[in-house]
Amino acid sequence: MYDLIIIGGGPGGYAAAISAGQAGLKTALIEKKYLGGTCLNVGCIPTKLLLGYTEPIENIKHLKRLRLGDGQFSPDIKSIIKRKNNIINATQKSIAQSLKKLGVEVYTDKAFFINPQTIKLATSNKELLFKHAIIATGSKSTALPGTSFNGQTILSSTDILNLETIPSSLAIIGAGAIGLELGQFFSRLGTRIILIEALNHPAPLEDQDIGQEIQKHLKKEGWELYFQTRVEQITTTNNQVHIDLGFKTIQVEKCLLAIGRSPNTQELNLENCEINLDTRFIPVNEYLQVTKNIFAIGDVNGKIMLAHAAEDQGRYVVKFITQKITTPYFPRIIPSCIYGFPEVMSVGKKEKELKDYQVTKALLAANPIAQAHGVSSGFVKVIWQNNKVVGISAVGYKVSHLVTLATIIVSQGWTKETTHNYIFAHPTLDESLKEALLA
Amino acid sequence: MYDLIIIGGGPGGYAAAISAGQAGLKTALIEKKYLGGTCLNVGCIPTKLLLGYTEPIENIKHLKRLRLGDGQFSPDIKSIIKRKNNIINATQKSIAQSLKKLGVEVYTDKAFFINPQTIKLATSNKELLFKHAIIATGSKSTALPGTSFNGQTILSSTDILNLETIPSSLAIIGAGAIGLELGQFFSRLGTRIILIEALNHPAPLEDQDIGQEIQKHLKKEGWELYFQTRVEQITTTNNQVHIDLGFKTIQVEKCLLAIGRSPNTQELNLENCEINLDTRFIPVNEYLQVTKNIFAIGDVNGKIMLAHAAEDQGRYVVKFITQKITTPYFPRIIPSCIYGFPEVMSVGKKEKELKDYQVTKALLAANPIAQAHGVSSGFVKVIWQNNKVVGISAVGYKVSHLVTLATIIVSQGWTKETTHNYIFAHPTLDESLKEALLA
Repeated sequence: MYDLIIIGGGPGGYAAAISAGQAGLKTALIEKKYLGGTCLNVGCIPTKLLLGYTEPIENIKHLKRLRLGDGQFSPDIKSIIKRKNNIINATQKSIAQSLKKLGVEVYTDKAFFINPQTIKLATSNKELLFKHAIIATGSKSTALPGTSFNGQTILSSTDILNLETIPSSLAIIGAGAIGLELGQFFSRLGTRIILIEALNHPAPLEDQDIGQEIQKHLKKEGWELYFQTRVEQITTTNNQVHIDLGFKTIQVEKCLLAIGRSPNTQELNLENCEINLDTRFIPVNEYLQVTKNIFAIGDVNGKIMLAHAAEDQGRYVVKFITQKITTPYFPRIIPSCIYGFPEVMSVGKKEKELKDYQVTKALLAANPIAQAHGVSSGFVKVIWQNNKVVGISAVGYKVSHLVTLATIIVSQGWTKETTHNYIFAHPTLDESLKEALLA
Repeated sequence: MYDLIIIGGGPGGYAAAISAGQAGLKTALIEKKYLGGTCLNVGCIPTKLLLGYTEPIENIKHLKRLRLGDGQFSPDIKSIIKRKNNIINATQKSIAQSLKKLGVEVYTDKAFFINPQTIKLATSNKELLFKHAIIATGSKSTALPGTSFNGQTILSSTDILNLETIPSSLAIIGAGAIGLELGQFFSRLGTRIILIEALNHPAPLEDQDIGQEIQKHLKKEGWELYFQTRVEQITTTNNQVHIDLGFKTIQVEKCLLAIGRSPNTQELNLENCEINLDTRFIPVNEYLQVTKNIFAIGDVNGKIMLAHAAEDQGRYVVKFITQKITTPYFPRIIPSCIYGFPEVMSVGKKEKELKDYQVTKALLAANPIAQAHGVSSGFVKVIWQNNKVVGISAVGYKVSHLVTLATIIVSQGWTKETTHNYIFAHPTLDESLKEALLA
């Protein structure tokens, strides 16, 4: 009998397992493939490595535009893919070691529920009893209706991460973080990019002014942009993809579908725990409970599909089980970032969610650190209600570096006066956030 | 009769002037040369621009070492110097506009005291009466005893910032922020660098482990390093500088003296206000007062020689004068950074200042953002007393971006538990700070 069984070894699952191990719970973690989940293996981490390893191309471009010098950088794609895979493997091993050290038993297998106290492993047929279980099975890329991923021309973000030859043209359907980040990588390598989005600006989860700033940059980079545009049909002939937009057809070498992600719930046999899935995501209450002793965290509950949100939920559930915490999980201030150029970060409320609010802004054009990199577009925006900060977002050079600072400011509900309690070092990008706070 | 006269238009002076203008004080600012002071004109800002504009050279080197690609970047030095000067000029104008908009009268002149209520302008002979005065005259580079700056071969940081030809060899005396940052710039351009420091590691104000990390990198870059080494004599013959270290003589094209800075106090006629300068710096009490109605802020009081400390002191004095604050200025948590590679940041207490303390550390080798830039050396260090954070420092890739976050954490005296109140976005450099907090 385990105190806790966790299904899924992604950021949510292994954070829960580590917390549980630290708390002295008898814990098992079941992962069907690789520790680290989507984030480590085919998500946040590999995309950040691909963007980091090609960043000189971007930086040189900015400086060349200002005639401050000349140069070029040619990445070695095979080495980059190899190094990315090495880092991923090393991180998997390091997660496995941490779990082992804490006495967490790790099973590499698929798992499903037999009843509300028993999980069965699909390959070994072993049955495991549990007091509590956490479902942390994550999500997978969603295809368009009538289209399926073929791994050759119609690609998911997972497929595209291991391409060793650079396509001459790539259509990206979906202008969220995944589409934008992967688009940047291939754009830097010379791929012609066509971006198609159903909503009216890139980064559609963010406010419109953030999206417009990104759009300005993508246009300058020569991306072909289609907003408020729906894809009618995707077909492949002779290794070329034809994307029918109704009013025109686009022909490209590869197509990335980045329109969203669906929860991995199909093989869990949730009905054996009397959980009826009327919704796509597993419904949870404010304590992240599905039933009294079964919890769902991370992508699979659909609340916030971000690695650090899953981690945080994992740690919360362990605290809840061990009665270290009795308050509901929500609301939590959850930061988010988009990498590449320009970067985006946002924390807390957005303008589009609010009615009565004030906005203050600072332009990065006046920031010496942005100036020093030849990239002075973008801004930091602070959203206020009742003279307190309720949201911060930013777009521009390296603004992801402001994200935890912003998280603390929003969480603590700073007023203008609070800003004066702290000295902001000069010169830093952080000073633009200070300027926006005091504007 | 002015409510407030400020002598010196650097970061301290103009921050005070802007605060005073906002507070409705009748205010004059006297600047003998350029608004913005050392920081804007010949200090923090130009060095950051020079480092930023040559950063691709550094980044490409890191990626080439890992065989992730090949390339080069050749900066156009004349364009870089021109753009630097344009940015400085634009910022001077923007400061002037802000002051004008707030009704601050700006005099471009030298100033000295006639008595504790009167300042005289040296060129115009105008006399100005004041209720309060702030001395914010800053500092200038110190030469070695027996050596003076000649602007040709023996250079101050001010001289070297406008070199349009790149010396083949440069000796830098003093391994503090100024020496390290300017050394990086010239090193990137191919100059042979010889670094000479009287103390036993680079960045001698920081803890030894920080210094050793920098030293490792400088060695790899091929710098010739001399620590615990005193310069006996510097002579120039045939446009070559000979630096006598006692045990050997070094011959270079140029020599940068970056051993420290002296306060600008000589022409103020402080004796007319019954201020006796027994010390190099102007002595102030805990309210930054020199006398009842005369204050000294920034480099000239020698407390903390950093632009943002001067700014903060300027704002404090205006609050003190207008009776918005009655508490002493000190202690204030003042962050500091060194730019280039590796970057350094530190906030609060250092190990070398303490006896009873604990240290927790996280290596950047495990951080995906450092990994993504091919630079995984360095660390983040947290210093604890009584289970509360009293100091944070870091060395490595872009750690300057952690500095305000660290300032808030030290100021708020976080415990390990406080860390769990906030979600750190993944992947970010900030997570290394979180890891160090939780280690």
